[in-house]
Amino acid sequence: MRVLFIGDIVGSGGRETLQTYLPRLKRKYQPTFTIVNGENAAGGRGITEKIAKSFFELGAGVITMGNHTWDNKEIFEFIDHENKIIRPANYPPGTPGLGYTFIRSNQHELAVINLMGRTFLPATDCPFRTVDQLLDKIRKRTPYIFVDFHAEATSEKQAMGWFLDGRVSAVVGTHTHVQTGDARILPKGTAYLTDVGMVGPYDSILGMETEAVLKKFITQLPVRFEVASGRMQLNGVIIDINPTSGVAERIKTFRIDDEHPFLE
Amino acid sequence: MRVLFIGDIVGSGGRETLQTYLPRLKRKYQPTFTIVNGENAAGGRGITEKIAKSFFELGAGVITMGNHTWDNKEIFEFIDHENKIIRPANYPPGTPGLGYTFIRSNQHELAVINLMGRTFLPATDCPFRTVDQLLDKIRKRTPYIFVDFHAEATSEKQAMGWFLDGRVSAVVGTHTHVQTGDARILPKGTAYLTDVGMVGPYDSILGMETEAVLKKFITQLPVRFEVASGRMQLNGVIIDINPTSGVAERIKTFRIDDEHPFLE
Amino acid sequence: MRVLFIGDIVGSGGRETLQTYLPRLKRKYQPTFTIVNGENAAGGRGITEKIAKSFFELGAGVITMGNHTWDNKEIFEFIDHENKIIRPANYPPGTPGLGYTFIRSNQHELAVINLMGRTFLPATDCPFRTVDQLLDKIRKRTPYIFVDFHAEATSEKQAMGWFLDGRVSAVVGTHTHVQTGDARILPKGTAYLTDVGMVGPYDSILGMETEAVLKKFITQLPVRFEVASGRMQLNGVIIDINPTSGVAERIKTFRIDDEHPFLE
Amino acid sequence: MRVLFIGDIVGSGGRETLQTYLPRLKRKYQPTFTIVNGENAAGGRGITEKIAKSFFELGAGVITMGNHTWDNKEIFEFIDHENKIIRPANYPPGTPGLGYTFIRSNQHELAVINLMGRTFLPATDCPFRTVDQLLDKIRKRTPYIFVDFHAEATSEKQAMGWFLDGRVSAVVGTHTHVQTGDARILPKGTAYLTDVGMVGPYDSILGMETEAVLKKFITQLPVRFEVASGRMQLNGVIIDINPTSGVAERIKTFRIDDEHPFLE
Ligand SMILES: [Fe+2]
Ligand SMILES: [Fe+2]
Ligand SMILES: [Fe+2]
Ligand SMILES: [Fe+2]
Ligand SMILES: [Fe+2]
Ligand SMILES: [Fe+2]
Ligand SMILES: [Fe+2]
Ligand SMILES: [Fe+2]
Repeated sequence: MRVLFIGDIVGSGGRETLQTYLPRLKRKYQPTFTIVNGENAAGGRGITEKIAKSFFELGAGVITMGNHTWDNKEIFEFIDHENKIIRPANYPPGTPGLGYTFIRSNQHELAVINLMGRTFLPATDCPFRTVDQLLDKIRKRTPYIFVDFHAEATSEKQAMGWFLDGRVSAVVGTHTHVQTGDARILPKGTAYLTDVGMVGPYDSILGMETEAVLKKFITQLPVRFEVASGRMQLNGVIIDINPTSGVAERIKTFRIDDEHPFLE
Repeated sequence: MRVLFIGDIVGSGGRETLQTYLPRLKRKYQPTFTIVNGENAAGGRGITEKIAKSFFELGAGVITMGNHTWDNKEIFEFIDHENKIIRPANYPPGTPGLGYTFIRSNQHELAVINLMGRTFLPATDCPFRTVDQLLDKIRKRTPYIFVDFHAEATSEKQAMGWFLDGRVSAVVGTHTHVQTGDARILPKGTAYLTDVGMVGPYDSILGMETEAVLKKFITQLPVRFEVASGRMQLNGVIIDINPTSGVAERIKTFRIDDEHPFLE
Repeated sequence: MRVLFIGDIVGSGGRETLQTYLPRLKRKYQPTFTIVNGENAAGGRGITEKIAKSFFELGAGVITMGNHTWDNKEIFEFIDHENKIIRPANYPPGTPGLGYTFIRSNQHELAVINLMGRTFLPATDCPFRTVDQLLDKIRKRTPYIFVDFHAEATSEKQAMGWFLDGRVSAVVGTHTHVQTGDARILPKGTAYLTDVGMVGPYDSILGMETEAVLKKFITQLPVRFEVASGRMQLNGVIIDINPTSGVAERIKTFRIDDEHPFLE
Repeated sequence: MRVLFIGDIVGSGGRETLQTYLPRLKRKYQPTFTIVNGENAAGGRGITEKIAKSFFELGAGVITMGNHTWDNKEIFEFIDHENKIIRPANYPPGTPGLGYTFIRSNQHELAVINLMGRTFLPATDCPFRTVDQLLDKIRKRTPYIFVDFHAEATSEKQAMGWFLDGRVSAVVGTHTHVQTGDARILPKGTAYLTDVGMVGPYDSILGMETEAVLKKFITQLPVRFEVASGRMQLNGVIIDINPTSGVAERIKTFRIDDEHPFLE
C-alpha cells in the first residue's frame, strides 16, 4: 500500500502546478491513496468548494487543512457535507467538519487524521490526548493510519512522531512550507517526516511575494501579502505501508522545481 | 573556495560524533573553511572554553552560537578574549563577544556573521538592519561572507535569504535542529538553506531525551531535559564559492546516521 | 457572607507583610472566608509545605496557585494530601492536586476554583469549558462560588467574567501583580476584578529587584531575579455575597503601602 | 502644571463619551495640557483625520497611538503633516509620523513621547534605548516630559517607570484598556501608572462586543469583533508637575461610569 502526500498547495500557481504534476506523479508512483493539504489553496488563505472539487477530480482522496482552515468563509457552507476534507481534530468539540476520515481502495481502508500543534500557534485542545482518544476508535477499524500534523515547532512535531510510533503508519508534518530532510522509519514502524513542504511559487517566502514579506519584517507596517507568481515548486512524500501490519516500510520525499525537474 | 558548515552540536554525544567524523569530512570534502554551531555543545546548553578549544583543535575555524549562547555561565569568562566564537550580532550594543569575525586561508578571508531571528524568539535588535550595517563594513574587506541565521520561523529565514541575495555568499539557518531539503542558489548568487540540522542523538527530540520532552508536552509539568544517548546523527552542508566573485556556485547538504552511513 | 481575597504573596517580605496585616484585616473586615494566592510565596517561585501551613495558621482557608505552582519541587510531596491548596483546574487530567475545593463556615460552604488563562501563557485545557463542566457539579452543592482566574490578558479575564456572570459569586484575576481599578458587579450578579494585585516589595518590578529585571529587558542577558527587599505593599479585595442567592452585593479593593496606611 | 491624560478611546461610543465629558473634565480640573490615546478611535481600529481633528477641537493637545496605529489606512495620508499625533517612537527609522512632540502653554512646553513594549507584542526597536536617546535631546529643551508607554506586560511597564524615574515627569501605560490602581510617585519624582484604562462601552470586553470575543475564546473560529454599544465608561488620570523642576507632585486616577458618576 502506497500513500502519496503533497503539502500545502498555495494559490492559483500551486493549484496549476498540482494539475500539471499530480497525474504524472500518480502514473509514476502508482499510489494507493493520494492526500493533499489544501489550507492555502484559495489565494493563500483557506479553500473553496470549487477548488476542493478540482483536487478530488485530479485524484486527491482526502484534503487536510490547518490553521488557515477558516480563512475563506465559504468553507462553512460545505465542510459539514464534505467528509473527505478534514480540519485539525483537536479543535474544540462542536467545530464544523471532521478531524479524521477514511478512504477505501479495492482492498484496504486508510484512516487520515489531521492534528494541529499548539507551540507558537493558537490554543486548541491537546493534540496528543486528542489523537490518543481517536486511535482507540480508529485502530478497531483499520491498522492503516496517516497523520498530517500541522505544526510550527520541530520539537512538537518530533514529539508527535515518537508518541505515535508503532500506533500509526505515518506522521507527516505540514505548515512550515519547507520540506525537511529527516524522513525516516521510527523504531516501532511509523514513517516520520517533520515537514513535507509546499506547492507554489519557487521564488517566494512560503509562497507569498518576497517584497511584501520583507517589507513587513523590516518596517513592521501593515502589508498585504499576495501569492507570488513565476516559476513553481512541488514538494511531496511517498510512503509504503505493509499491507498486513500497517507498519511503514519506506518513506521517500521528492521535490520538483527548476533545479529538480520531474523525471517520469 | 569551499565552506563546510555543521549545525548545532548537542552534548557529549554530539561532540564525540563531531570528533569521529570531522577529520573524515575534511579529508573527503577538503573545505577551505570549517564552521560549526556550538550553542548546545555543553550538555545541550551553551559551551565551555574546553569544548570550544576541542572544536578548534578538530579543525573548526569559527564557532557560531544562538539563543543558548549564555546558558553556560563560563562563557562570560572567555568570550571577550576569543574572537573565533561569535554570538548573534543583533544582540544589543554592549553585549559581550563579537557578532562577526574573519578567518583566513592561504589566499582568502571569509567573514562569518551570526544573526538571530525575532519571530517566536526573544526581542533583539532588527537582524535585517543589523546585517545591513555590518555589510557596509565587511564588504569593503572581503566578498566572501557566510551568515548563520539562527531562527525559528521559516518565513523569517527565507526573508533573510532574499534580503541578502547577491550581497553575501551564503545564508544558512540553524536552531530547529532539523535539516531542510531546500538548499539552493538564489537568483543573485547567494547559497541558501533554511536549516542545516544538528549533530547529536538520532533517537531523540532535537537531541533531548524523548520521554522527558513528551512528558512536558502532555502534562505541562516541569521536566528536566537531558541530552539523549544511543546512536548519533550528523548534519552538515558544503558550499562552493567562486573565488573571484564571492558568489556561491553550489550548495549540498549531507546527513550521516545509521541509514545514511558516511562514505569516504 | 464576606470573602477576603489577597493576591500573589511574593517571597519572605510578602509573607511577613501577610503576617502583619492578615490578623488586622480579619479584625477589621470580619470575613467569613479568607483566600490567598500563594504561587510566589517561596522566594517568588512556588510554595513549600511549611509556608502553606503558616498561611493556614494565619487564617487563610484556601491557597490558590498559578503558572508558578510547580516551581518549588517540594509541592509534589504534599499537594496530593492537602485539599485546601488548589492549582489551576484546567491543567490536564492526571495533574497532581485539585483544581477546586470547598471551605465551610458555620452556616455555609464556599467553593473555590482556580483557573489559568492561555493567552501569553503555556497551553492548557480550555478554561471556559473546564469551568463549565465543574460548575455542573459544584452548583449542585453550593451557590457560593469564588473563582481565581490566573491570567495575563485583560481580554481573557474580562471574557471569563462575562462567561460566568450569574453562575458564580466572584471572578477575581491574579498573575499580573498589579491591582486594577475595575471592580464591579456584573449585570447578573457576579463580582468581577481583573487583578487583585500582589503582596510584597513596594519598590520592585512585580516583587523582583528592579535592577535585575531592567538589566534583563535592556541587555537580553540571563539575569537571576531575586525578590526585592525594603518597604512592602499588600493588595486585596473584599466581596460581599448574598447568603441566600450567592449573588455578589459588593466588591471593594484595598491597598496597603506607605502612601495608603492601614486604618483599623 | 497639570496634565490630563485619557486612555484609549474606543469607537463612536468612546468618541461621544469624550465629547460629553472632556469639556466638563477641563472645567473641573483645569489642566494645562490634555492628551488622549486615539489608537482605537475609528471603529476600534486606528484613527481618521476627521476624528483626530474632532479630538483637537474638543481640547486635546496631543493624540498618542499604539499597536493599532496603522489599522485605518487613512493615517498614511495625514500622519506626516500632523505633528500633534504621535506613534510609538521605537518603530524602525523611516516609519511615517513622529514618536514625540511638544505642546506649549503660555509659560511652558511639555514633551510627549509615545513608546511601545515588546513583550507579547510585535518586535520593534528597544523602547528603553530609544527613550534614552530621545531624552538626551528632549531634556535640553524642556524638563516637562510625559510618556505614554503602550504595552501589555506589567513587568515591562513597571520596568519603564523605574528606568525613567527622575528623568521624566510621568510614565503612564496604555493598551490593556483596564485602569490599574497603582498610581504613585516613584522615589526620584516620576509619576507612574501601569494603565490608565479606556473610554468606551462599559459592558464589553476591552470595548468590543462580549459575545463575539467569548465566541472566539471558546471556539477558536474566526469572529469579527465590533465595538459594543450601551452605557459607557471613561478612564483618565490627572498629574500635577512642579513647574520649576518638572518633578511630579501628585497623580490621581478617575473613572466615570454608571457606578461612578461624574461630579462637577
Ligand atoms: Fe500552509
Ligand atoms: Fe499553516
Ligand atoms: Fe540549537
Ligand atoms: Fe537555538
Ligand atoms: Fe504571581
Ligand atoms: Fe503567575
Ligand atoms: Fe487600545
Ligand atoms: Fe493597543
